[in-house]
Amino acid sequence: MTEEELNARHADKMRKKKAARDKIMATKTIAKGLIIVHTGKGKGKSTAGFGMVFRSLGHGYKVGVVQFVKGRLDTGETHALERFGDLVTVRRMGEGFTWETQDRQRDIAAAREAWEAAKELIVSGEHHLVLCDELNIVLRYDYLPVEEVVEFLKTEKPENVHVVITGRNAKDELIEVADLVTEMEQVKHPFRSGVKPQSGIEY
Amino acid sequence: MTEEELNARHADKMRKKKAARDKIMATKTIAKGLIIVHTGKGKGKSTAGFGMVFRSLGHGYKVGVVQFVKGRLDTGETHALERFGDLVTVRRMGEGFTWETQDRQRDIAAAREAWEAAKELIVSGEHHLVLCDELNIVLRYDYLPVEEVVEFLKTEKPENVHVVITGRNAKDELIEVADLVTEMEQVKHPFRSGVKPQSGIEY
Repeated sequence: MTEEELNARHADKMRKKKAARDKIMATKTIAKGLIIVHTGKGKGKSTAGFGMVFRSLGHGYKVGVVQFVKGRLDTGETHALERFGDLVTVRRMGEGFTWETQDRQRDIAAAREAWEAAKELIVSGEHHLVLCDELNIVLRYDYLPVEEVVEFLKTEKPENVHVVITGRNAKDELIEVADLVTEMEQVKHPFRSGVKPQSGIEY
Repeated sequence: MTEEELNARHADKMRKKKAARDKIMATKTIAKGLIIVHTGKGKGKSTAGFGMVFRSLGHGYKVGVVQFVKGRLDTGETHALERFGDLVTVRRMGEGFTWETQDRQRDIAAAREAWEAAKELIVSGEHHLVLCDELNIVLRYDYLPVEEVVEFLKTEKPENVHVVITGRNAKDELIEVADLVTEMEQVKHPFRSGVKPQSGIEY
């Protein structure tokens, strides 16, 4: 096949692909606030959550961020969020992962406080998107009943508000109620070759 | 078991977990610019890439962004990046996905131009992180030889520069040379129930 034939065949193939895609996309007409879950053992769960936060901020939308368990390694995001002033409301409840506090009662109280803050941000309807960062961890340890969270999302979340929930081990009940679920799978991790967490990457 | 016993047992378990974790982390002492790949069919590949971009910007680091194939749906990110002024250099080469241009020769030329821009940003050493958004797509269609990209990353990337490469179908040669690879797997997608792409979420 000559280069010219290859180009012609490619154009034809892409034309068909575009027609098929356009046809599919024409059926996608519903706009609604989504329940989005990022789970899995790989990297990128919170990072993609924050990516959506910045994307929304770029549009000039108000955004809420609630951090359920991370306490420390978020200086990069914090400073970046500060650039957007009043558009962002951040609630930072966790005091670090649970193996650092070693105090179950305090963790449960912190989880409850964070969840109340998240509900408030969501029901206000003022925010285009509310990120519940690491909520899955709290649910996994049963610091909050998953039934309560699911019930709230089903019945009290305003129709137009997007809610993004991150963390490993998302519960089945949450996946069931979610619109968009992505599992981040670890294929290769630099810790294995002795590389430490680095700024701009992990925090 | 009483609530008190439960709490005590938890504290003990977490203390051990923390000790184990601290021991592991103490062995992670290497700092180096990573080659990071986000691939898979799920959402969040570019979004997590942009999350790292904003994280780096939050630290005050300079960042480079090269978009290889997306042309349109990035208004949110564009406006958000603008907030960081001179810290960000954006090169937008693609004119949309290939099924929209339908012109193989033009796509190959655009891919080449984008790659030259990416190399320039990387070798300058001025940028903490360079995001090569959707480079995998270009490699997959053989618009750029993967050997050339791998060879460059191995021999010319400055030691301290992080390079993030996104897109489906990452080639094995690239995964081989990468330090951190995450596969975003689609568990549930709202298109299936007729929901259209929405601002702040998809773009």
